Amino acid sequence: MDDLFIMTTPSLELHERLRGKIAVEPKMTVDSAEDLALVYSPGVAEPSTAIANDPDAVWRYTIKGNTVAVVTDGTAVLGLGDIGPLAALPVMEGKAMLFKQLAGIDAFPICLATTDVDEIVDTVRRIAPSFGGINLEDISAPRSFEVEARLQDIGIPVFHDDQHGTAIVALAALVNAARVVGKELTDMTVVVSGAGAAGIAISRLLRCTSIDPDVCKSVGDVLVTDSKGIISSDRADLSPAKQELLGYSNRDDRSGSVHDAIVSADAFIGVSAPNVLDRDDVRAMADSAIVFGLANPDPEIMPAEALAAGAAIAGTGRSDLPNQVNNVLGFPGIFRGALDARATRITPRMNLAAADAIAASISDPTPDRVLPAALDASVAQRVAAAVAAAV
Amino acid sequence: MDDLFIMTTPSLELHERLRGKIAVEPKMTVDSAEDLALVYSPGVAEPSTAIANDPDAVWRYTIKGNTVAVVTDGTAVLGLGDIGPLAALPVMEGKAMLFKQLAGIDAFPICLATTDVDEIVDTVRRIAPSFGGINLEDISAPRSFEVEARLQDIGIPVFHDDQHGTAIVALAALVNAARVVGKELTDMTVVVSGAGAAGIAISRLLRCTSIDPDVCKSVGDVLVTDSKGIISSDRADLSPAKQELLGYSNRDDRSGSVHDAIVSADAFIGVSAPNVLDRDDVRAMADSAIVFGLANPDPEIMPAEALAAGAAIAGTGRSDLPNQVNNVLGFPGIFRGALDARATRITPRMNLAAADAIAASISDPTPDRVLPAALDASVAQRVAAAVAAAV
Repeated sequence: MDDLFIMTTPSLELHERLRGKIAVEPKMTVDSAEDLALVYSPGVAEPSTAIANDPDAVWRYTIKGNTVAVVTDGTAVLGLGDIGPLAALPVMEGKAMLFKQLAGIDAFPICLATTDVDEIVDTVRRIAPSFGGINLEDISAPRSFEVEARLQDIGIPVFHDDQHGTAIVALAALVNAARVVGKELTDMTVVVSGAGAAGIAISRLLRCTSIDPDVCKSVGDVLVTDSKGIISSDRADLSPAKQELLGYSNRDDRSGSVHDAIVSADAFIGVSAPNVLDRDDVRAMADSAIVFGLANPDPEIMPAEALAAGAAIAGTGRSDLPNQVNNVLGFPGIFRGALDARATRITPRMNLAAADAIAASISDPTPDRVLPAALDASVAQRVAAAVAAAV
Repeated sequence: MDDLFIMTTPSLELHERLRGKIAVEPKMTVDSAEDLALVYSPGVAEPSTAIANDPDAVWRYTIKGNTVAVVTDGTAVLGLGDIGPLAALPVMEGKAMLFKQLAGIDAFPICLATTDVDEIVDTVRRIAPSFGGINLEDISAPRSFEVEARLQDIGIPVFHDDQHGTAIVALAALVNAARVVGKELTDMTVVVSGAGAAGIAISRLLRCTSIDPDVCKSVGDVLVTDSKGIISSDRADLSPAKQELLGYSNRDDRSGSVHDAIVSADAFIGVSAPNVLDRDDVRAMADSAIVFGLANPDPEIMPAEALAAGAAIAGTGRSDLPNQVNNVLGFPGIFRGALDARATRITPRMNLAAADAIAASISDPTPDRVLPAALDASVAQRVAAAVAAAV
């Protein structure tokens, strides 16, 4: 409690001093009546008329081509949960800062005063003209699946970062961890703890769902667990989203708890809750075990514990420990690439390209460094190029 | 045509070079893991939690208190009409530039892919959490009246600039013109040509509708004309909005055309169409006639014509002629004042205060200078102070 107080006071002070972490700035000063006539009335009638005649010209003359809306309903914010759209605003501002700093993208927070799927979908459709892409953020599952799916036809990329961003960076970490321990992804069994938005997206990407097998190397098997245990055909309580997992996970239809799933597994990726694993679980894994506990701020198992129990590589979502699996490595470059290529959607193939680019940005991964630093802007450039090439 | 080509090419070139006239910029650079932990995860949980516990804290820790959405459906853009939301975007960006330069406000364009009143109202309600105010722009009448009216209860100011902004600056111009010619507003008859959004708002403000008579000096009478003539009780074709005008205009219930209305009038304010008046009309006005033809880009009568026919003062909406009646004099300061006072709405009383502050910013008006220059930032400061004091 004392630690928390000391750590967080500077954040409140900083936020109060800044009164918002982003600003909207003119790209030029309007110094004269001539300037005013160029950027506003009457000169602005020229680009407006050009766009009215050819809607495609909006990408040439306006902010649209470099602008992303960061859209949330505030229902699944960080580890805080359903805190509402006003309380979500500082998080969305932080995300907008990172979009600009790492990828030069103008991102603006749109915090919605509704949690109804139909209303979220309608609202995003209606505000889309100003934007070149939509980053859905911190919308709780399973609504987030439907929101994202129903917005895929709006002509600009709509990307739920909590799903795909997490999956991309987790795959990148796994790719480099496999290089370090000398295993092939195709031979590995991976336990994914958590069958929410992130867990399902990770499982889909690890298994190359909806991606041409010629370009995607699927891991050997994935076992997904939720609070009730392994997602298997004998479960009578599965939601439609979890039922779908049966199609591409748990090849041998194993049952049991996460402690059963982990036996002989090569890797663990947790997007669930603190302290799901203990040392005995890690000891039961295959040799050269890889353990990523991404629950925030308290992971499924602390790296020191995992390593003490024999894991070869351990990581978390935390910035104060090695091997931070942080979405910041993904979303700026993914949107940069999508905007540069003027993609109309972000496909699983593009997500895979992003993961590979993040992994490839480390030429010589080590057990303590399977991913680049979160603020390394060169990663976004690599990711952008790879994503644009995969459109 | 040649003139138009020469004038407008620089605007297209400028817009293509800038690729959007505004940018979203971080207020600080995230240089280190410590910075990242302060502005994003985990530190951002502090302001988010504070707001979840006390929604009022959103004004202290976020962009909300300094941020305005410039919302349009693209149905009534400049003189271009219904060109749609994409083509409206350059205009909204220009407006956002002026918000920042003149009043330090972070404004962001929201161009809506709907023209349905219910959908516009719902969408603005849903996106409101990120914003401290809503500037409705270039939404065609009569839908704009209903949209604005139905959004007055959302807890932040919603202001339709085409109505009230135009009315405020027109009143400021009239106040100073009256000072120049030595007439009292209360003795004057004013013809308002145009019974759309702007014409009705001008008439309401000139007649002190919904404002305490102790603080508002109403003009003696207003005659409003539309394309069919004077709004009078013998008209069978009046929309509800025009019927309302009968309650506070045309005291003697005169009938006829704009040419009948103008006889003996002290002032003319046109928000209608080019060339509505000719020299004979101006000659028929009272002595020391005041003529503001605000149709853009071609006014109801060119100032040179009006002055040649005996008008004492003439103005337009154009930046290349004296006495420009430009909304830029109003909206930045009005929102600045409303945000500073954390007003929940912008009232007629605040509009009046804004008009008086604009007028008072010229200590010694002359026939050629009844209003300050459009880019004079001191005007927004005066307006902001007056508006905040009138909340």
